[in-house]
Formats: sequence, structure tokens, C-alpha cells
Amino acid sequence: MKGRIFSGMQPSGKFHLGNYLGALENWVKLQHEYECFFCIVDWHALTSSYEDTRKIPQNIHDMALDWLSAGLDPERNTIFVQSHVKEHAELHLLLSMMTPLSWLERVPTYKDKLQQLGAQGKEINTYGFLGYPELMTADIILYKADTVPVGEDQLPHLELAREITRRFNNLYGPIFPEPKASLSQAPVLPGLDGRKMSKSYGNEISFSAGPEEIREKVRMMVTDPQRIKKTDLGHPDVCTVFTFHKLFNAEHAVQIEKDCRSAQIGCVECKKRLAERMVDMLADVHTRRLALERNPGRIKEILDYGAERARKVAAATMQEVNKALHLMG
Amino acid sequence: MKGRIFSGMQPSGKFHLGNYLGALENWVKLQHEYECFFCIVDWHALTSSYEDTRKIPQNIHDMALDWLSAGLDPERNTIFVQSHVKEHAELHLLLSMMTPLSWLERVPTYKDKLQQLGAQGKEINTYGFLGYPELMTADIILYKADTVPVGEDQLPHLELAREITRRFNNLYGPIFPEPKASLSQAPVLPGLDGRKMSKSYGNEISFSAGPEEIREKVRMMVTDPQRIKKTDLGHPDVCTVFTFHKLFNAEHAVQIEKDCRSAQIGCVECKKRLAERMVDMLADVHTRRLALERNPGRIKEILDYGAERARKVAAATMQEVNKALHLMG
Ligand code: SF4
Ligand code: SF4
Repeated sequence: MKGRIFSGMQPSGKFHLGNYLGALENWVKLQHEYECFFCIVDWHALTSSYEDTRKIPQNIHDMALDWLSAGLDPERNTIFVQSHVKEHAELHLLLSMMTPLSWLERVPTYKDKLQQLGAQGKEINTYGFLGYPELMTADIILYKADTVPVGEDQLPHLELAREITRRFNNLYGPIFPEPKASLSQAPVLPGLDGRKMSKSYGNEISFSAGPEEIREKVRMMVTDPQRIKKTDLGHPDVCTVFTFHKLFNAEHAVQIEKDCRSAQIGCVECKKRLAERMVDMLADVHTRRLALERNPGRIKEILDYGAERARKVAAATMQEVNKALHLMG
Repeated sequence: MKGRIFSGMQPSGKFHLGNYLGALENWVKLQHEYECFFCIVDWHALTSSYEDTRKIPQNIHDMALDWLSAGLDPERNTIFVQSHVKEHAELHLLLSMMTPLSWLERVPTYKDKLQQLGAQGKEINTYGFLGYPELMTADIILYKADTVPVGEDQLPHLELAREITRRFNNLYGPIFPEPKASLSQAPVLPGLDGRKMSKSYGNEISFSAGPEEIREKVRMMVTDPQRIKKTDLGHPDVCTVFTFHKLFNAEHAVQIEKDCRSAQIGCVECKKRLAERMVDMLADVHTRRLALERNPGRIKEILDYGAERARKVAAATMQEVNKALHLMG
């Protein structure tokens, strides 16, 4: 029997290639090994952006477009928006009644995140912000997911989710599997300038970039700064282009490294090869994206369909939960 | 235009006469002056009883039976159970995102209640317990109630509800009226022994008592302890029976006071008069109760009907709320 995965992302604007490699690429693989629930968690986004929610609809649309372009299959998976399935709020409320306050207060990331966002001038020390891991727990167990793909930084949240799940099961009976982490070690993609790829640095390649944009962005990449002339021997280990070759062109990376160190290849040619390789690799993504963009109602249709599927599973779980809590007279 | 009231009670077992006079009698009057939403708040009951929820269904049934027997009209009012209307949980979650944690922490009753229940050995320092006034706010404004009948002790919660409502309106637009308190000064009914009427003292008269039980309980009441013989002059001010006369037989209380002080009336006769007066006053209550008890499916029907009515109003509010928060793509 296949395991069941729940994974969510906050709708926070268009992906860049680093985001894609960081999580989405992994999901595309996971969909073949698990029954997957992929959720755009818009309610979670409120924890840090409740003061201005105007971008949420566009961000949800962009995220769904990125997911579907990446190759997530809306038939194989349940792809949906959190706020379309009210049961998340219901289970969150029930869990809140039996979760010791201290469990939430001691989550190590809680105080860090407070400071970090506080420093950006955001007033986010709210009741809901403290309850973030509670809502995350509800998200996961509502679908009886047994596996959650997480990065290292999310491990404390998942540990808490397991603790809350155990407590629920002890109080009301063994309704939920304890969700376990599937740790994904995502490669870190540098930006064009060699720093971490990030929109705030303006050094990103958008995940929606078409062939022309990819070629142009690759041309802008910084290379080995000590290699001025083509005859200078190169140092691929300090070259961003080479880091990209390792991730997108792994099978030729050894040869390129050799040719660069011995000045058998020039940077212009090296970049061209990378760009063409990336264009190839992202060709399907690009095709899917263009098809979706030509059909403006399609994303809504897919999310409605996903919400319907999710609701069925969620409603069945809540029926069990409410029965266990003696809540439906 | 009539104002709109929301008022809720936790399902915590059968009423005694003191409970009835304390709140329900007031509701029976209010139903003629306002459009009323009367809610059995079972989710709130979890804050203090999540560890054992087995009594909830019976308690809900008993509470509905008490309400309907008292004369609350399920056509005139919307009478329903909180957990049947999921929108309470949804709005609670949304409000949680914008409510500063400190607002909840500083509610004066919060720490008192924690200590009080902690002393009973209940482990109730949960996330949901802290959020109690948040859920109460959602309950009220979900129906755009402008008036909330409260006792003195509930005023801090209502003040917080008003604050949260103002904050919501400031952030997202003027969707909700600020609910104002309608302070009810409920008379305090003593128990049979002169102490406060309470189940834990075993000194109560059940609100479901029929004529025979009322007569018997009245016979058991303590009277002026210094009045041994019928010829002793009485002191009605220290007599529980007289306190009852003032509440249930106000028009004859002056005469009875006089007759007692002058030993014109004996305690047996005095009690008989009180009992008959109470039997008369509660005759309609008793009749309604018997009719409901003869029709076991009726209470469920009424609560289902109420939930349907409540859901319509709640769904309309949430549509407005979600639109204001840009949450329905
Ligand atoms: S040849 Fe390629 S790897 Fe070497 S420095 Fe130039 S761009 Fe970098
Ligand atoms: S006569 Fe009535 S009021 Fe006076 S002491 Fe007896 S019971 Fe009380």
C-alpha cells in the first residue's frame, strides 16, 4: 500500500528556479510513490500578511500555475486551496482545546520568527501566529497523512504535530496515524550573482522563464572573476555557471570542469551549453504553462475539483473525530 | 428595527430554578423585543471538559429541553448547537490571525479561571482555553448581533469582543456592528437550606420539577430558625421561604411579611401558598416539557431546523468576510 502525503505551501508569489529545486521538483517525484495532498495554505499566509491580503488571489493563481507547470497531475494528486475546505478550521479548533499552551510556546522557531518578522516592522505577535503549528497539525492529520516531506527547519513543527496526534489518540482513540518526516535535502541554487537566489536580491531566474529569458539570464551570470581572457585557466569551483551545470547538466559536468581548468572551453560557449540544456529540461514545463495560460478558466476548475476531492476525505475524517468526541448529538 | 441578540450557554447538565431565573427567564422576555440567536456552545464546553466528553450529547438534549420548556419559541428565535455551524470555527481562525496575543493574555478572568479549574485538578491551560474570548467573539459577530445579554462577570469578555471587532473593521472594512452589552441583573435564588442554590450543595429545585416535587421541596425549606411555635413572631427577612415569595409571589409578599411578623400565618400554610403559586407559575413550563418528552425526536428536529437557519446567516456573513479578506479566489 502506498503511503499518504500531505504537503502545503504558502502562496507568496511566483516561484524562481531555486524554489522549484527546493521543493517542487521533489513533489513531482513523490506523486509517483505516494497518494498526495498538495495544498496552497492561504490561511497560514495570514499569520504574516493579515494586514494586507490583496495579493492572495493572484498568489494562489500563480502558485497553482507553477505547480501544474512543474508537472503535478491534478488527477493523480489532490491539489487544492486550504480555505476551500472548512474542516481545516474545525479540526484546528478541536485540537486547540487539548493542546497545552506551553507546547506551542516552546517551539524553537516561534521566538526566532517573531523577532525576524518584527524587525521587518510587522506586528505579528498574534494568537494565530502562536497557533501556526496547531493549524499545520490539523492540515496533515485531516487527511490521515502518514508522511510529510519537510526540510530540516520544519522538523520541530513536525515533532509537535506528532505529539499533538499522540495526545489526541490517547484521549479519544486511535484515529490518526502519527505523521513521520520525509527529509528532503534540496540543493541550494545560487542566484545570477553567486549569492543565494532570492527575489529581494534581484538575482533570480523565474520558474516561468521561457527559452529566451533563460538564455539571457544565463548570459548575465557571474563566472570565475580571475578568468579575463579565454586562454586563462578557469576555476569552476568558484563559478556560478558551473554550479548550475552540476545541477542541470550533471552528466557533462566532469568534462566541462576539465575543459574549463585547461582553457579548452570559453565562458560564452560554456554558458550557451548550460542555457540550451536548461531550455531542454524546462521545455515540458514551458509547454504546460503556455497551455494553461491559453485557458484562463482552467486553474479555477482544477482547484475546484481538488477542493471537492479534499472535502470528501476531510468530511469523512471529521465524522470520525466528532463521533469520538461525542460531538454530533 | 429590532436589534439582534446572540447569546450562548455551555451544555452543562439540567437547570435548576436558580439557573432559570439567572438567565433563561430573561431570554424568554428578550425573544419578544429582539431577533435572537440562542446557541448551545458545545465547543466552548471543551475548554474545561475535553478530557471527558461523554456527557455532551445528553447535556445538549437536556439544555434544549430546558430552553424549550421555558418558552423559547423555535420559530421566533434561531435555537441551535454551535458545532453544527462550522462557520464559527472558520471565523474564529480568521480572527485569531489578527488578534494580538497580549489582548487574550490580559483578560482579567483568564488567570482566575485557570487557577480555579487547576485547583480542581483539571489540566486546562490549553491553547483553546486562552482563545475562549476569541471564539466567543466569532460566535457573536458571525450573526452580526448588536446586543449581547451578559452578567457583570462577562463584561471583560464583551469588551474584548468589541475591541477585536473594531480591529477587524479597521483592517477589512465595516462589516460588523460592535456588539454592546445588555446587562441583566438576575436575582440570586437561595437553595432550600438558605445557601446559594447549587447542585454541589444538593439544595436545589430542579427546573424540571413537576407539581409534586415542587411541593415536597418547598416543605423541606428552612424557615426562620427562631420561630418554633406558630405563635412565635416570625422574621421573614431571614427566611428562605420569604425570599421565594418575593420572587415568585411578589404581589402577596407585603401581606405575608406582615402576617409572619404578627404570627397571623403559620409556616406550613405559608409554604403551601408558595408551593401552589410556584406550581401555577411553572404550569406552562411543565406542560411544554411533558409534550416534548412524549415526542422523543422533536428536540433533534428543532435543533436541526435551528442549525439550518443559523447556517444561512453564518454563510452569508462568511461570504462577506472572505471577500473582504480576498480569500475566495
Ligand atoms: S568555462 Fe564555464 S565553468 Fe569555466 S569559468 Fe567559464 S563559465 Fe565558468
Ligand atoms: S411564616 Fe412564612 S415567612 Fe414567616 S417564617 Fe414561616 S415560612 Fe418564613
